[in-house]
Amino acid sequence: MSDKKSSIDSKRALRLDGWGFVGESFAVSPALLDWLAARLGDKSEALPSFDPEAFRAPEPAPVPELGCAASTDAFDRLAHARGRGFPDLVHLRSGTVARLPDAVARPGDETELQSLLDAAQKHGLRIVPWGGGTSVTGGVNAPAGAAPVVTVDLGGFSGLESLDEESGLAVFGAGTIGPRIEAALGDRGFTLGHFPQSWELSTLGGWIATRSAGQESLGYGRIESMVAGLDLTAPGGRLEIPALPASAAGPDLRQLVLGSEGRFGVITRATMRVRRRPEHQRVEALLVPDWASGVEASRSLVQAGLPLSMLRLSDAPETEVAMAVGLGKSAWAPLARAWLRLRGIGTNSCLMLLGAGGTPSRIDACFERAWTLLRPHGAVSLGAGPGRHWLADRFRHPYLRDSLLDLGLATETLETAAPWSRLGHLYRAVGRALAGSGSRRELVVPVLCHLSHPYRDGASLYFTFFFRCPRDPDEAVAHWARLKRRATDAIVAAGGTLSHHHGVGSWHAPWLPHEAGESGWRALRRLAQELDPRGVLNSRVLLDRTDRLEE
Amino acid sequence: MSDKKSSIDSKRALRLDGWGFVGESFAVSPALLDWLAARLGDKSEALPSFDPEAFRAPEPAPVPELGCAASTDAFDRLAHARGRGFPDLVHLRSGTVARLPDAVARPGDETELQSLLDAAQKHGLRIVPWGGGTSVTGGVNAPAGAAPVVTVDLGGFSGLESLDEESGLAVFGAGTIGPRIEAALGDRGFTLGHFPQSWELSTLGGWIATRSAGQESLGYGRIESMVAGLDLTAPGGRLEIPALPASAAGPDLRQLVLGSEGRFGVITRATMRVRRRPEHQRVEALLVPDWASGVEASRSLVQAGLPLSMLRLSDAPETEVAMAVGLGKSAWAPLARAWLRLRGIGTNSCLMLLGAGGTPSRIDACFERAWTLLRPHGAVSLGAGPGRHWLADRFRHPYLRDSLLDLGLATETLETAAPWSRLGHLYRAVGRALAGSGSRRELVVPVLCHLSHPYRDGASLYFTFFFRCPRDPDEAVAHWARLKRRATDAIVAAGGTLSHHHGVGSWHAPWLPHEAGESGWRALRRLAQELDPRGVLNSRVLLDRTDRLEE
Repeated sequence: MSDKKSSIDSKRALRLDGWGFVGESFAVSPALLDWLAARLGDKSEALPSFDPEAFRAPEPAPVPELGCAASTDAFDRLAHARGRGFPDLVHLRSGTVARLPDAVARPGDETELQSLLDAAQKHGLRIVPWGGGTSVTGGVNAPAGAAPVVTVDLGGFSGLESLDEESGLAVFGAGTIGPRIEAALGDRGFTLGHFPQSWELSTLGGWIATRSAGQESLGYGRIESMVAGLDLTAPGGRLEIPALPASAAGPDLRQLVLGSEGRFGVITRATMRVRRRPEHQRVEALLVPDWASGVEASRSLVQAGLPLSMLRLSDAPETEVAMAVGLGKSAWAPLARAWLRLRGIGTNSCLMLLGAGGTPSRIDACFERAWTLLRPHGAVSLGAGPGRHWLADRFRHPYLRDSLLDLGLATETLETAAPWSRLGHLYRAVGRALAGSGSRRELVVPVLCHLSHPYRDGASLYFTFFFRCPRDPDEAVAHWARLKRRATDAIVAAGGTLSHHHGVGSWHAPWLPHEAGESGWRALRRLAQELDPRGVLNSRVLLDRTDRLEE
Repeated sequence: MSDKKSSIDSKRALRLDGWGFVGESFAVSPALLDWLAARLGDKSEALPSFDPEAFRAPEPAPVPELGCAASTDAFDRLAHARGRGFPDLVHLRSGTVARLPDAVARPGDETELQSLLDAAQKHGLRIVPWGGGTSVTGGVNAPAGAAPVVTVDLGGFSGLESLDEESGLAVFGAGTIGPRIEAALGDRGFTLGHFPQSWELSTLGGWIATRSAGQESLGYGRIESMVAGLDLTAPGGRLEIPALPASAAGPDLRQLVLGSEGRFGVITRATMRVRRRPEHQRVEALLVPDWASGVEASRSLVQAGLPLSMLRLSDAPETEVAMAVGLGKSAWAPLARAWLRLRGIGTNSCLMLLGAGGTPSRIDACFERAWTLLRPHGAVSLGAGPGRHWLADRFRHPYLRDSLLDLGLATETLETAAPWSRLGHLYRAVGRALAGSGSRRELVVPVLCHLSHPYRDGASLYFTFFFRCPRDPDEAVAHWARLKRRATDAIVAAGGTLSHHHGVGSWHAPWLPHEAGESGWRALRRLAQELDPRGVLNSRVLLDRTDRLEE
């Protein structure tokens, strides 16, 4: 009962009360601090940090024989108690996590997993599948209640099982984390091309369960277009969906598992479509005069079918912050600003990043076409510097949340997607909902936004907002919950999707019937009943309508 | 009860006992006839044609008030009795259709459709949704049995409802046929880009219900990638799935409806992703020395990500027939053959067609890249002639089946798909299964094949086979059924999908559990029970395991 193998197979220890690895951080730059102080005031009280000495785990409920390795170690239970959304960070830091799992199970194969699920059905356990534990939707939190909770760490299902180079199909265990996937494929000259912000920590199974989209989804597609086949072990049966390039043999069962968030079963393995790793990669930065012209430029690039791998357009506030934090540090910044003003780029300007991969000549050709479409929108190049910056930091941004909490400031993100024709309205509606009627300093909420993951018919909007974090953990979470409810109501009312890549979890679940419709929601519930007749699996995510934002 | 409006809103009358429009045909060329005679012998007895004078429709069972227009006209019932697979043609020609629908209903809107489904539930009717009626899998055939059968012609749900040019999203009624879709979009400079062989007759709803793939799926994607949102009316509820570019809000309900074949409900409307119509289109033809090098060349083109819209590679027998029928007619054919032999292109050579669309310079650039990849495989250009030929005839090929039946010869097609690494085995296994142990002339089955709809990880194989058609309709169908069973067993055993774009219908349904797995199959049945609790909808397709090949 002491196997501490984690799904994060790095040698580096994971932080118990924040994002990522111990010793890693993303400092709040003086420029950002100035920017925030100007809006939120400069006096705020730091949230306390987690004190391992003072931590006393509640006694675990007795758990029956599970048929696989399992641990009841207090810190192991704490490490598997919560995801990494804002309320998780608050409760972890302040030692107020209401419920820990009673055991952390580590099945080594599908037979052991099946035994575990059998035991769960027999003894009424609650099972939470755990990949990297990076959910920001309450998707892996131990459910409160009397029933014993067993969180299932899928680290035992890790690694490359086989690679069919001819077809570009790689079979991986679902517990494999991003870097290990790319390392195994890179050795053979391939890439999966899936790079969500959580990439260093999160797992293939987690990506599939939450319909993840990586930062280069424009070039490589979302996770659902990469899955050729997969295996799912469920209490009510087992799905072994063969790897096929396409099929007309009935509804696509893969697409039922994609987005099922551990509610229908545990994903153990997937056959992924992989590609030859591109020789080179380039990210170019540019400025457009304002948000509207940037959205138009983005749309024209995508609808022209350019072979870009990435597009990201910051709105003016996000651009201001990015320039203050990044470009602002450069010695030639004042000169650059003067030159940009001459080119018609003023304070409303928006930063755009464009990525492409391949041979140098193909990348050149792609950007040549891109600039033909960009120039009419008044775009001005910033060169490759900001892109290098972004590439270097792209998996480190979540650490900023912890650094800000150390200063008593909170930041959170949320995202949606909609057709191009609704994006303007959606952008304004969510911004308004978050900013609210902040007359008092305590209620001011600066909001940043970027457009990313563009499609021919629409794009994602990703919002980042800041607020002064009340020192009392429950008050902090209640404040966050009010903002989250307002923003989610606004998203749904404006015709955006409830989530573009974070998933539903338990926090978005009350709004799911709005998007799926009552009949659609009931159809999903019926599926859950078929695959998990006694409801032992992740019962609070996806199909539980209770508002659990403050749990 | 006499509204004869059909979902085929052309002025042209439809043939009652064969494919397509009255007066249209595709003649059997002397060259093809010679080719067939050399293999099947030249004496065969024509299947009789349908005799409308002799046709006596069985008395329809009494049908209650349906809440919408409905017809019990004998010819209308016959016109909606069967799809257009081989057994359908045989039984229609010989007047041996065992079951006609008792009425043809024509709801004008969703309210009428809902009334019809309510009546069906109340009175135990069997409902068959009908788009273009071109199913080749027994997907729209009136089910035998005592329960009254009402076939629902969806012609009332036809036309473009709205077009969002900014997002490239067009809302169409599900009963809209291909030419009407392209005409409505073409007026505004757009195209859907979905061109299945049945395009002139089949409907958007039918394409969605059967997970159709058009001939240009390489460029435009399969129908499932084109559907942004859709509406489904079912006895157990109604799905109104919003048009979104992407979402992580749970399993994708669109993908449940796609491929549901009328078993889960009736698709009434869909929001489709459309694109600017390309300025130009070009199809180039070439020969490769043999099948293996052609497959390799195809794979290299697709995995390089070339912006082709179409790729089609015929095997040596299909190339021989194509050359005999098409290229062979040209006066310079002997000269061309001599030249090709000099270039190393002999009797094993395989014809490849490549399509691309866009501006002339982009098309040039695409083919320039293509030829860089093709030359190492020994490819020799045949220019644009064969491609023009193919474009002109691409929707007319199904008429050939009727012309052959007039001569006592049968032809049928079937298709599958698999990863590249399994294609060689699949190709040989299906060919062997169809050709069988044909020692007697009656048992000889010449088989042609082409690779099409290539993906990065695999491709479709499309088989065409011929046999002497027994004059007795039951014997003809039994002979076909033996071949179909052998081929389907071979496909499934070789790891191909049961269908790449024809669907499951009732003929493939016994094999579906093999591909979906028992648990997957049960999950689909559970969904059917949720949306259609009394099983009134198309009860014999998709989830009925009975072998109905000879019905």
